[in-house]
Amino acid sequence: MTTVLAADVGGTNIRLAIVSDKGVILEAVSTPAHFSKRDISAKKLLSTLASAFLDFLDDKTNVTAIGIGFPGFFLGNSGVLSSSPNLPMLKEIDLGKALSNTLGLPVVVQNDALCAAIGEHRFGAGMGRSNIIHITLGTGIGAGLILNNLPYTGEDGMAMEFGHLCINPDDHARVCGCGNTGCLEAYASASAIVSQFEEKSGTQMEAKEIYQYSLNGNKQAKEILLAAGAYLGAAIAEVVKILDIRYVTISGGLSAAWPILHPVLMKHLNARVIPPLKGKITVVRSQLDDKAGLLGAAALAFDIKQLR
Amino acid sequence: MTTVLAADVGGTNIRLAIVSDKGVILEAVSTPAHFSKRDISAKKLLSTLASAFLDFLDDKTNVTAIGIGFPGFFLGNSGVLSSSPNLPMLKEIDLGKALSNTLGLPVVVQNDALCAAIGEHRFGAGMGRSNIIHITLGTGIGAGLILNNLPYTGEDGMAMEFGHLCINPDDHARVCGCGNTGCLEAYASASAIVSQFEEKSGTQMEAKEIYQYSLNGNKQAKEILLAAGAYLGAAIAEVVKILDIRYVTISGGLSAAWPILHPVLMKHLNARVIPPLKGKITVVRSQLDDKAGLLGAAALAFDIKQLR
Repeated sequence: MTTVLAADVGGTNIRLAIVSDKGVILEAVSTPAHFSKRDISAKKLLSTLASAFLDFLDDKTNVTAIGIGFPGFFLGNSGVLSSSPNLPMLKEIDLGKALSNTLGLPVVVQNDALCAAIGEHRFGAGMGRSNIIHITLGTGIGAGLILNNLPYTGEDGMAMEFGHLCINPDDHARVCGCGNTGCLEAYASASAIVSQFEEKSGTQMEAKEIYQYSLNGNKQAKEILLAAGAYLGAAIAEVVKILDIRYVTISGGLSAAWPILHPVLMKHLNARVIPPLKGKITVVRSQLDDKAGLLGAAALAFDIKQLR
Repeated sequence: MTTVLAADVGGTNIRLAIVSDKGVILEAVSTPAHFSKRDISAKKLLSTLASAFLDFLDDKTNVTAIGIGFPGFFLGNSGVLSSSPNLPMLKEIDLGKALSNTLGLPVVVQNDALCAAIGEHRFGAGMGRSNIIHITLGTGIGAGLILNNLPYTGEDGMAMEFGHLCINPDDHARVCGCGNTGCLEAYASASAIVSQFEEKSGTQMEAKEIYQYSLNGNKQAKEILLAAGAYLGAAIAEVVKILDIRYVTISGGLSAAWPILHPVLMKHLNARVIPPLKGKITVVRSQLDDKAGLLGAAALAFDIKQLR
């Protein structure tokens, strides 16, 4: 059986999987990355990735290509990382070529949030749709766009910076990690939920605990999550006004709070879209959840193989 | 010489022109439409358009096709009007086919704001660019998107509802003609400028007079125009975050206020886009101004001719 190696590179972990052409994960591991340091060099990045891949590949002879989702901006489908907001030392690196030379296999690399969109479109809740907006609600908020069945990257790989849509133009709005104020990510990401709860209650706890608190009737937890859902709905409405796409899928750790997020999100989405589209937008939870990115990277690896 | 008939259908006037394949307007007229009535029927619309076209065509034998920009939503490139926000009686009309049958010529019909984008891309400030966002600043605010050299319509012709992006989420924001609150159009269109000036000063005057007032030092006029420019910049930033497109063209009557609008627009645009794109977006004034829509309709008519 033909398989590919898929990788989802995060700040703290590299997740690796062997994936079949049906999108089945046959084997998976997670290995520490420690990329959260802001001083990682290109050389260190490449050696860390290569060694993680080689360890995992070991004697697997039926792997024909490697697909990687990486947190950064890529120039089209070239595999060239132009920059990475959280790893500012990394600029203009031909990640695809460098890793391909070291590993002796075809390598394709793409933005991690776009990989999640590709995965959801190919194997998940977006199957059979020509156009989807896929949102990853995690520590940060990412998104990817599938347009006419193809991943949309924008002119320099910076499309769908959904987490940085401004949902609060007030001068005193929350400051985002990007440096701007009022970004969606500063209100509705897991890390923003954690920060806001700590500010209100004085207690630091994980987003999933805060969700549990809200279910147990904690007013502060519930308010924060309801506001996050409302902002998410408002931000989706803006994307719909620009693209006229009707189908939205959501993955990521914070999507576990679906029962509280989804109703308020739909209410604010429908309040904001243009009148002919009210009630016409579908927002569903991912069918792949935290595997969307891995499976999208796998899909890209299968595609590269077919092209050669 | 081969020519086409181009039409730009507005609420009060139908503008008609004979256009060469180089985008030169050889002859033009404007004829009253009186479509502003909210009770116009499909039959009345078709007879009004057909008779205006026939009068103008008269004995012009070298016209090979007709292109029409119309204020409404069209299903893809089919010429089928699905609905028109300002003419709610009109629904599901195959405008293209009906007019073609009456006039005996190939007819193509598309959204007026998208026609303006097509015109600017083919013959104006967007020439040679693969991707442009074109904004029409008139009585209302429309926009059109050219993506990979092709007009982008969205799933049901409702893409680029730029004038209805929410730039003020406050509950007490201005009410828009669409029924929502806080839309860009409620602050930065010519009609919004007029309304706001009247509310502040008690005096009703046209947008171009208000612009003249601002140049002469009128504080209220200047404040309203500066706020409009700031909102425009903020709204363009949101589109850039979604699409990663670097080139924006602006036409329409209110673009005459360019000297006051452009600097404040750029300031707010650059404040809002993601950091790697600050300073990277170009916003230019149309080279075709109020002829962008007509010339876009002409371009579509030339294209349809080539397809047949």
